[in-house]
Amino acid sequence: MKIIVVGLGLIGGSIAKALKQNTAHVVLGIDVDEDSLLDACSCGALDGKADTEDLKTADLVYLCVYPQAALAFAGKFGPLLKEGCVLTDTCGVKGVVCQGMEALPGRYSFVAGHPMAGKERSGFSASDPSIFVGASYIIADTGAPDRAVRTVEDLARSMGFGRVVHTTPRRHDQMIAFTSQAPHVLACGYVMSPRCPEHQGFSAGSYRDVSRVANINDALWSRLFLDNREALVEELDELQRNIGAIRDAVASGQEEQLRRLLQKAAGIKRRFG
Amino acid sequence: MKIIVVGLGLIGGSIAKALKQNTAHVVLGIDVDEDSLLDACSCGALDGKADTEDLKTADLVYLCVYPQAALAFAGKFGPLLKEGCVLTDTCGVKGVVCQGMEALPGRYSFVAGHPMAGKERSGFSASDPSIFVGASYIIADTGAPDRAVRTVEDLARSMGFGRVVHTTPRRHDQMIAFTSQAPHVLACGYVMSPRCPEHQGFSAGSYRDVSRVANINDALWSRLFLDNREALVEELDELQRNIGAIRDAVASGQEEQLRRLLQKAAGIKRRFG
Repeated sequence: MKIIVVGLGLIGGSIAKALKQNTAHVVLGIDVDEDSLLDACSCGALDGKADTEDLKTADLVYLCVYPQAALAFAGKFGPLLKEGCVLTDTCGVKGVVCQGMEALPGRYSFVAGHPMAGKERSGFSASDPSIFVGASYIIADTGAPDRAVRTVEDLARSMGFGRVVHTTPRRHDQMIAFTSQAPHVLACGYVMSPRCPEHQGFSAGSYRDVSRVANINDALWSRLFLDNREALVEELDELQRNIGAIRDAVASGQEEQLRRLLQKAAGIKRRFG
Repeated sequence: MKIIVVGLGLIGGSIAKALKQNTAHVVLGIDVDEDSLLDACSCGALDGKADTEDLKTADLVYLCVYPQAALAFAGKFGPLLKEGCVLTDTCGVKGVVCQGMEALPGRYSFVAGHPMAGKERSGFSASDPSIFVGASYIIADTGAPDRAVRTVEDLARSMGFGRVVHTTPRRHDQMIAFTSQAPHVLACGYVMSPRCPEHQGFSAGSYRDVSRVANINDALWSRLFLDNREALVEELDELQRNIGAIRDAVASGQEEQLRRLLQKAAGIKRRFG
């Protein structure tokens, strides 16, 4: 297959590297940043730069850019893609992307994907295919043909993903609000404490783990948060209520109630991991 | 020196093992659980069980039990300890322990300590001296003689701790509310979400790190929280305000304000680690 990766940041760069390492497909790239493209070509993550002719003959295109940029690319270049070409994205929100894609013309098949992997750094220089090993690759149902979905699944497994999970765009966004977005919000809220600048010498694993993702890419995450506003606000309200219940039990000295709440949490963690 | 470790749980067991591995001192143990004592003796973590005569001749006693049990032990057996014996605790709160110790009679010198190490499991079977390597050992000032403080410091370094930090009991409790207690509260509040039982397949590093300490020992932590009520409630109110500010920016769609908040958090994390 001829595969084009659009956007050679952390995820796009890691996908290009994983495809070159684990498959025999031709992998070409597109990026507004010429340096990232050159780096990717010189380190063997790409076979070369893609041009308009390549788009016309591509079998699969990965959109590894922000949600609005993915929609803009599909709107502009989608009409060039051949019939049967698989266009798939890697955006962290699926509702806005799937709705936007539905409105666009084109003969390609759109598959909505979300590789559940990342790290605190961004950009091609941080890309590393090992972040995919054993991770989940989520596919949100958009009514794409089975053949297109299977192609994306097969490539995910080739790249080292441990499982492919199928869901709806709405459920994806609700689950991601809990598993990924809320932890980023609370890491940010946590480090804003006036005690944070003095934590050295008083901190250990708990501090390190909760604050890890606070070094956030504000441009990316503010868009992801706003593109998932309803589900994220619901999740944060839930979190605030639950922290508030523990806070109130501590403030009023209700030891039995406090123990019940902690037991409940410990039971959930033991049961669901 | 003849050293007695009172309480052979995660911390006491790890201290006994670290002392036997790294020093030539005689290490004896006391525990209400006969099995833990036998296990500790048979694996070489202890030279034997301590009796009343050993307490009378001990050079140093580690209290590795809950705060109220540490005070009860010191009240009951403190009068037996010889002049110059160093009595030191490892409790996670220092205000109530230091105040309680001050009121007790005895010829020993009390040094308030807090080894900043732990893990999600508890009990002697989980004990492991490697949890101390590179960690902080906090000593809260109680006016103990320099010689006694130096003895506790030297043993901490022998056990592998990376640094000894001196502070006041009050400041210890404020900092620990931030670095350790608040992360435990928010891990518990976090897993109470109705989305938690379905996280498999949708979760990765962020979920794992934030939820790690939710499998909490409710008997221990409810006491630690209540023994540090004022500082913990202040820290949780701060956390709730900061999460609330991000939540409100998302809910009202204020992208610029949201980015400013995320930038602020990222800047703090980059600067203070």
